[in-house]
Amino acid sequence: MDYQAILNEIAEEIKPYMGRGKVADYIPILAEVDPMQFGMTVTMFDGTQYSVGDAETPFSIQSISKVFTFTLALDAYGYELYRRVGREPSGNPFNSLVQLEYEKGVPRNPFINAGAINVTDALISHYGSPAKASKEILAFIREIADNPAVESDKEVAESEMQHGFRNRALANLMKSFGNLDNDVIEVVHTYFEHCAIVMSTRTLSRAMLYLANHGIDPITAKKFITPQQAKRINAVMLTCGHYDASGDFAFQVGLPGKSGVGGGIVAVIPKKMAICVWSPALNEQGNSLSGTKALELFTTKTGYSIF
Amino acid sequence: MDYQAILNEIAEEIKPYMGRGKVADYIPILAEVDPMQFGMTVTMFDGTQYSVGDAETPFSIQSISKVFTFTLALDAYGYELYRRVGREPSGNPFNSLVQLEYEKGVPRNPFINAGAINVTDALISHYGSPAKASKEILAFIREIADNPAVESDKEVAESEMQHGFRNRALANLMKSFGNLDNDVIEVVHTYFEHCAIVMSTRTLSRAMLYLANHGIDPITAKKFITPQQAKRINAVMLTCGHYDASGDFAFQVGLPGKSGVGGGIVAVIPKKMAICVWSPALNEQGNSLSGTKALELFTTKTGYSIF
Amino acid sequence: MDYQAILNEIAEEIKPYMGRGKVADYIPILAEVDPMQFGMTVTMFDGTQYSVGDAETPFSIQSISKVFTFTLALDAYGYELYRRVGREPSGNPFNSLVQLEYEKGVPRNPFINAGAINVTDALISHYGSPAKASKEILAFIREIADNPAVESDKEVAESEMQHGFRNRALANLMKSFGNLDNDVIEVVHTYFEHCAIVMSTRTLSRAMLYLANHGIDPITAKKFITPQQAKRINAVMLTCGHYDASGDFAFQVGLPGKSGVGGGIVAVIPKKMAICVWSPALNEQGNSLSGTKALELFTTKTGYSIF
Amino acid sequence: MDYQAILNEIAEEIKPYMGRGKVADYIPILAEVDPMQFGMTVTMFDGTQYSVGDAETPFSIQSISKVFTFTLALDAYGYELYRRVGREPSGNPFNSLVQLEYEKGVPRNPFINAGAINVTDALISHYGSPAKASKEILAFIREIADNPAVESDKEVAESEMQHGFRNRALANLMKSFGNLDNDVIEVVHTYFEHCAIVMSTRTLSRAMLYLANHGIDPITAKKFITPQQAKRINAVMLTCGHYDASGDFAFQVGLPGKSGVGGGIVAVIPKKMAICVWSPALNEQGNSLSGTKALELFTTKTGYSIF
Repeated sequence: MDYQAILNEIAEEIKPYMGRGKVADYIPILAEVDPMQFGMTVTMFDGTQYSVGDAETPFSIQSISKVFTFTLALDAYGYELYRRVGREPSGNPFNSLVQLEYEKGVPRNPFINAGAINVTDALISHYGSPAKASKEILAFIREIADNPAVESDKEVAESEMQHGFRNRALANLMKSFGNLDNDVIEVVHTYFEHCAIVMSTRTLSRAMLYLANHGIDPITAKKFITPQQAKRINAVMLTCGHYDASGDFAFQVGLPGKSGVGGGIVAVIPKKMAICVWSPALNEQGNSLSGTKALELFTTKTGYSIF
Repeated sequence: MDYQAILNEIAEEIKPYMGRGKVADYIPILAEVDPMQFGMTVTMFDGTQYSVGDAETPFSIQSISKVFTFTLALDAYGYELYRRVGREPSGNPFNSLVQLEYEKGVPRNPFINAGAINVTDALISHYGSPAKASKEILAFIREIADNPAVESDKEVAESEMQHGFRNRALANLMKSFGNLDNDVIEVVHTYFEHCAIVMSTRTLSRAMLYLANHGIDPITAKKFITPQQAKRINAVMLTCGHYDASGDFAFQVGLPGKSGVGGGIVAVIPKKMAICVWSPALNEQGNSLSGTKALELFTTKTGYSIF
Repeated sequence: MDYQAILNEIAEEIKPYMGRGKVADYIPILAEVDPMQFGMTVTMFDGTQYSVGDAETPFSIQSISKVFTFTLALDAYGYELYRRVGREPSGNPFNSLVQLEYEKGVPRNPFINAGAINVTDALISHYGSPAKASKEILAFIREIADNPAVESDKEVAESEMQHGFRNRALANLMKSFGNLDNDVIEVVHTYFEHCAIVMSTRTLSRAMLYLANHGIDPITAKKFITPQQAKRINAVMLTCGHYDASGDFAFQVGLPGKSGVGGGIVAVIPKKMAICVWSPALNEQGNSLSGTKALELFTTKTGYSIF
Repeated sequence: MDYQAILNEIAEEIKPYMGRGKVADYIPILAEVDPMQFGMTVTMFDGTQYSVGDAETPFSIQSISKVFTFTLALDAYGYELYRRVGREPSGNPFNSLVQLEYEKGVPRNPFINAGAINVTDALISHYGSPAKASKEILAFIREIADNPAVESDKEVAESEMQHGFRNRALANLMKSFGNLDNDVIEVVHTYFEHCAIVMSTRTLSRAMLYLANHGIDPITAKKFITPQQAKRINAVMLTCGHYDASGDFAFQVGLPGKSGVGGGIVAVIPKKMAICVWSPALNEQGNSLSGTKALELFTTKTGYSIF
């Protein structure tokens, strides 16, 4: 299949959607991003990459980082992790406290904010300190991305800290239920650090290959997690990867994926490839508007779907 | 792969789980079912069937019927159907009124009770009367099952009517929001009629082939829905098919499927086969306890997974 | 104190508020009522009445009837009544199903719709049939109003039946929890019958005297309930009498009272008098806008308050 | 009336209730309090006091302090205060986050934790700093109690800080909605400081006289708030003073009052007297079990009730 031609078509067909939606504005630094950007990369198992648009532009990966911290925590804790965090869709806006209270401080899944904060807390306990956890998370992402230059944007992380009262509310609530080991402020700060990591669609689609290949990087042959764990992360991405539009994404796109409020979306086609698309303007559910459309076009044009 | 050997192994390994869980007891007639039954059938695209246990015993398909009414309604209304019913996981116990009120009478998906009642209402409007809708639903199931003997159990349907106050509450609530066309009692009665259809694992796995084959019955070559529609029904089964354990089922089993409180579960392996398992005792989430375990064993032993 | 002068002043001062708010429009027949009407009556223990405005115009008492059915049920069941219905404020819009589900079908108090429907059900069980219950309720209201001409408006009751799907949802939900004895349709119909009773401010303020006088009609000396029961009905009116504006009413007016969507409000000043005001346009919480203001002016001018 | 005899009777009749219920144990220091203590004091407008039992023993006033901060904030802000905090019953357990989220960070009333934290925040803004607010709150309580020896227990306040994650969650949630001016940790600390004030039933009943007398201390003739404000504080105590048992307290006791988890309850009989009762063991709703019973006995024996 001529993936380059397909990406070129998509970049063309996506144009009417550019300008719609709204860039995340809950912190000033994200609100300044130019919404008229669009980039997309497909990475094959042999490392071949097909790209279109702003595929080299670094953007804030935000919630996509939750896939990587979930991977690390699953590797560290195995099944024990599910004592702290579930794997059911949340069926509620992504930052709601209601369900967390109803379910006694156990977040529904690792991809809602409460769940990801809890996973970060688990990693701090595992590695021994916030600083060590941050270092290991970054090291892991550099390794799967095969790119030692990946960094977190301190300015974004600090800005999130100054506005992240809802996330602190979530962390305090979990702590009140005894489901958080470490200091609330430190956990939330560590969480914001990995959310503030910046990557391009090229780097990010490369980094997702291990999940398309059942836990093993197909290029370096490094094994990060077991095949079963990889399949299960994909299952959680499919059912919970897009906040309250997860069902819609499964319905329209039909691939396991994860979005972030920075406008990025990653997706995998098991045993075939990894995809990353980025466009900063978001739809009402908080997912990249043009990015979602681009992935829908990709699966329509290629016929790829896990269903 | 020697499917018969695999099923035999499963029937053996499932034994410690028999006797656990609890038969549905909200209507007396279902409470009388012997919990120590277990049957499983795999149907291939050429019609070959592999079975084990009580594969010929008819059981109440209950919520599995929602897959068939959703198919019919999608065929009748196309995309317009989503004005009445969504496709997001519910993240709440299966018969909760809360979310329905919060979302102004639009059920989250066609597989929660409110959604399926709404789909039945849509079919009554489409076919012109409750009696015609019931007739068409039954005719469709007979056709996909290639079995003209399939029937609804009147006694079960009547018993449900005498206890179905919560479903009437759901229907009244939707009607109060203007999201129900027909008379509440008639809609709920029609809904209970198709829930009361009885089938065996042999018949039911045969009936699911069209969803494993992108809308076309692989044996008769009849086309029931478009490939895209079939993929999307599978996506909704994956994200919403098992009440508040849908994430768990995707995680553990990794296949699109649908369960019913009668103890049946259907699942499809796209482009390969359809599966039906039945065992009446339910786990806490209302899904067949041994049936869920059997499907987990099947995917572990075969390595099949959509992820 | 010159009550007539006070009422005259109020009628003058209320004028700027006339024309604000919105007449109840959930049934067509109520929507037709002229919003520019205002009437108010104060009835003393010796039967003296002071009135102003449209004090002879009959209006639909709606939820004010809940005070009378609560009285009858308390007399019939005593403390046992609280097995079926609580006495805590609801803290939610008046027709919400959420709390009813959370609290397993036991309504929070007899003045939210679910609670009043439940009280009506209790009266049907007590009197033996819907017809007998309706007859006894009407007879009781005629007796306390000392007015044999009081009637229910059949047209209003029928119109409510044709639109009362939410109330049927509430009744079905209670029945699903085993907290409703009789047939849902019959209970809801009986409930609508007493809501549709029509009275003027003159008749209605007269009818409330027994609650201002600890259960004994001060004119006829008939004892309807014990002093303790009367005080407790007043307590429930104070904490729960005005839907989600009960706290506000206690705060602004400082008297036990009950409002109805027909625009009527009754209030009592213990050991002194009973008051009824009516003006059809409602505020956002569903209480008479000018009526609430008039009562606030009355307590300001007289200095009367239970606090 | 022979109040001393009545109190003596109550102390006798309360004995079977001693030993029931459970001392607050969410912080270790409160869990150590001997549950078998009981004290009660009635203070008349001329300063006469009638006491029984442990009326001199200081206890942690906890949520009763909310009455005093509400008074100060009402005096400082007047009607503007209601932009920050409502006056409707909460209809939910006292520390629930759900309603706070649903109502966009505006607490329902000043007596639930979120509301009281918000009032403390308002006082910090008004007085200029947490230290000044703490000082003014304590000075006010000393003044109304006519007792310069009243102090806050630092150990209790510190212990609350180490366990108060839910209160920090509430404060963070309000801050995320823009409804908190000051630093979360400082606001919560100031809140815990005034909750940790210790007083006896003698001192506390004396302190409540201004609310029984429409804002004016009947002994010193000092005017703290307007008559209207005093009546309105009483109204909020009646509808919201006892968490999710406020309706029940109004129903059983029939007086405006406020309870604290330290086991104290204050109540006022307008224009007559102020009452304080204390017994540490709490009922399921978090109010003093014997204290509630004692107040019920007092109103039964004296016939006093605002209804």
